[in-house]
Amino acid sequence: MPIKKEFPTPDAWLDHSVSYGETDAMGVVYYAEYLHFFERARSLYIRERGMSYSVVEEKGIFLPVREASCKYRTPAHYDDMLNIHVGIREWKRASMIFVYDIYKDDRTTFVASGFTEHACVNSDGRPVRVPEWLREIF
Amino acid sequence: MPIKKEFPTPDAWLDHSVSYGETDAMGVVYYAEYLHFFERARSLYIRERGMSYSVVEEKGIFLPVREASCKYRTPAHYDDMLNIHVGIREWKRASMIFVYDIYKDDRTTFVASGFTEHACVNSDGRPVRVPEWLREIF
Amino acid sequence: MPIKKEFPTPDAWLDHSVSYGETDAMGVVYYAEYLHFFERARSLYIRERGMSYSVVEEKGIFLPVREASCKYRTPAHYDDMLNIHVGIREWKRASMIFVYDIYKDDRTTFVASGFTEHACVNSDGRPVRVPEWLREIF
Amino acid sequence: MPIKKEFPTPDAWLDHSVSYGETDAMGVVYYAEYLHFFERARSLYIRERGMSYSVVEEKGIFLPVREASCKYRTPAHYDDMLNIHVGIREWKRASMIFVYDIYKDDRTTFVASGFTEHACVNSDGRPVRVPEWLREIF
Repeated sequence: MPIKKEFPTPDAWLDHSVSYGETDAMGVVYYAEYLHFFERARSLYIRERGMSYSVVEEKGIFLPVREASCKYRTPAHYDDMLNIHVGIREWKRASMIFVYDIYKDDRTTFVASGFTEHACVNSDGRPVRVPEWLREIF
Repeated sequence: MPIKKEFPTPDAWLDHSVSYGETDAMGVVYYAEYLHFFERARSLYIRERGMSYSVVEEKGIFLPVREASCKYRTPAHYDDMLNIHVGIREWKRASMIFVYDIYKDDRTTFVASGFTEHACVNSDGRPVRVPEWLREIF
Repeated sequence: MPIKKEFPTPDAWLDHSVSYGETDAMGVVYYAEYLHFFERARSLYIRERGMSYSVVEEKGIFLPVREASCKYRTPAHYDDMLNIHVGIREWKRASMIFVYDIYKDDRTTFVASGFTEHACVNSDGRPVRVPEWLREIF
Repeated sequence: MPIKKEFPTPDAWLDHSVSYGETDAMGVVYYAEYLHFFERARSLYIRERGMSYSVVEEKGIFLPVREASCKYRTPAHYDDMLNIHVGIREWKRASMIFVYDIYKDDRTTFVASGFTEHACVNSDGRPVRVPEWLREIF
């Protein structure tokens, strides 16, 4: 499957080498590990915009996950180099949706796709409007 | 929120104590861990029907996850005792859908809910019709 | 191998069912998971003494791991019920050493053993003398 | 602490960015994650010698961990870039010992160190002499 043309921009690509600890007894990457891959990809995405998520937290804004979803197409194995495509599909008043497509074999084999919806909350855990400085970096 | 009345039967309940290793720097259970909880709950579900998933595999049937989804309502913390409700919502020709509701505080506080869809495949990874013996144990 | 006779008291036993997510492509429990088992066992140990580790932290005392070690004797597999024996081998001025023996098959097959050494620090991360109330509960 | 001068050669360095999922409620990297870092580093080490560990397994040789040990010096946090130094300290007849030093801040801050001892076994799990082709690649 070719890379989707309609992927949102700006985007980022993370390469991630599958470790032994990420596999399970079926010989493939365990399904929960994909949510770790998603997180690594969105951290990179934020870093590439010039900010670390740890700085976002220092500014008093937290982005806890409200919903996560993943569809698994092709299994990944130990030592596979995964290519994770990440972008933001939608901004809401107090939340945002990241989307992910995972490939291997130099972005040619489609492995999985998914999304995560994040609330925007303050240090008390209360939902707040997405700050301008946050929206601007994206 | 009270326990949902429309939950499918047969069902099973798994109690799971949150470990330190399941938490993250936000002080709450990391979002990928819920997929581990789901898996523990459906393993218990199969065991309570009188069969281990390892026996299912020995019979040449594998149930890889095709899709997983989780909605996070209330954070869980270290040492919380989670109560995980599991059942099967739907049988398809060559797949099935497990559903999960997670509570804490003796099944009174709603924490998260989700589902996993599993393909039914043989040892070559080919989709096969759900065997009668598998459907019967549920 | 029979259960070691010289195990320190008081002790505690944790039963833990191996999940699929704890296995790796070799078909056995991944080696890092044993440190999670150790942590679950010492949490139980503290709970059985009448206190949760989260309460220890609320009192301003943290017990970060300074050293961890594990020897692997027999592999464990998916769905194995592990029996984890835990106790405290030694108290030092500002630290303590937990020891662990892991069995399966109703405490008859020896799986692994190890220890963890914990510093006793305050909320600033400074080493402090082990408080009397902490030593007394053990 | 400067980089140890006596580290064995050949060696390899792996850079690894700390993800949120690797941290715990203490705000630092959870202690079991270091064994994952060790594994990532030795995979890289083998790859840099021109072979993947998956190829080692295809040749019928497995290197299960017999013992693992880690000493924790300085906590690591989310988004830290870790620098993991890996080498082989010792060859025995049917086993080998990998050693690891972990740094951050461009190899200037010492974070942790450890070792893993690996048996050399065939596909039946029986200990075998380390094959010449394996020793030669190192």
